[in-house]
Amino acid sequence: MTPEVHPWAADLTELHMQVWTRLVRGVRDRRAPTRHPTLAKVTPDGKPQARTVVLRAANKSSGTLEIYTDLQSSKVADLRRTPFAALHVWDAAARLQIRLEATAAILTGPGAAAIWAGLLGASPQSHGSLPAPGQSIAQALDYAKQPNPASFAILRLKVQTIDALHLGAHHRRARFDRDARWAGTWLAP
Amino acid sequence: MTPEVHPWAADLTELHMQVWTRLVRGVRDRRAPTRHPTLAKVTPDGKPQARTVVLRAANKSSGTLEIYTDLQSSKVADLRRTPFAALHVWDAAARLQIRLEATAAILTGPGAAAIWAGLLGASPQSHGSLPAPGQSIAQALDYAKQPNPASFAILRLKVQTIDALHLGAHHRRARFDRDARWAGTWLAP
Repeated sequence: MTPEVHPWAADLTELHMQVWTRLVRGVRDRRAPTRHPTLAKVTPDGKPQARTVVLRAANKSSGTLEIYTDLQSSKVADLRRTPFAALHVWDAAARLQIRLEATAAILTGPGAAAIWAGLLGASPQSHGSLPAPGQSIAQALDYAKQPNPASFAILRLKVQTIDALHLGAHHRRARFDRDARWAGTWLAP
Repeated sequence: MTPEVHPWAADLTELHMQVWTRLVRGVRDRRAPTRHPTLAKVTPDGKPQARTVVLRAANKSSGTLEIYTDLQSSKVADLRRTPFAALHVWDAAARLQIRLEATAAILTGPGAAAIWAGLLGASPQSHGSLPAPGQSIAQALDYAKQPNPASFAILRLKVQTIDALHLGAHHRRARFDRDARWAGTWLAP
């Protein structure tokens, strides 16, 4: 049998660890593919939507992730109504597709404000926009980014399921569930 | 004002054209980012899911895309029930996020068989799997890929909305709707 380049992919515990190692790396390394996952959510009329987000926190022990967003964005409105999100990352170097299913909570107010305070000087311009993101404008640049703590929201994702697919000499796919205390199961790829 | 590296992003018609040029490129160029979009769909219990797919056809005049899939996959079952899909691509070289919303149809039988015949010798092994994709297995390699024309399905996506976001010296975002004959509207990013 062809030797595998990524031996961790052949062991459920190591594969699970690898997913979190890469998520955590995305928080601090702008060039890691896990820095910019694709987030999918459902609109009020039941349709899926997907967009790039920036991963801001990843905690293996709590199984949670955080993304910063604009309180006025459709993401926030839709996730308040249907609090389920999926995150997707293709990590080419690891030949690893990470798919997460999560429940979503929106944090605003004092809790978020403390984090906002820490962000000042970083990239606060991405929170606060006039008109709100997604509104029609007559010309392409008829908008202003206005740092506004009241627009700052944290999207906290509580991961429920991890589906990891490794494309090696032999493909391997596993699923890890919060309800099973993250015990893994192999799946047919 | 800083000159833009991608002047096409400042014109609605050119931006729309650019989206399709890049989608079409993904069909024939394995290394184009549009080769592997992320597809999002909704499960029967109303939750979003996302995975990588391979773009197999893109037609600007009909506004349609095609993806090949395994008839036994959960993608097919879920899209038959909730025939809406979203596609997402981040094209780093173009600094362009492409977001598509589409209605989905599953093609099987004789129509698909003709395409299957053309695929033989290409990568038919990705269609037909025992057990079906996503089924639990005891060990990682307890599965067999068995080329099977009866498992081959085409997912045809009829694009309804295109949301294009260009990250330049100034960010620009536009939306194009089938119902408006693809006339574009600028949106606040």
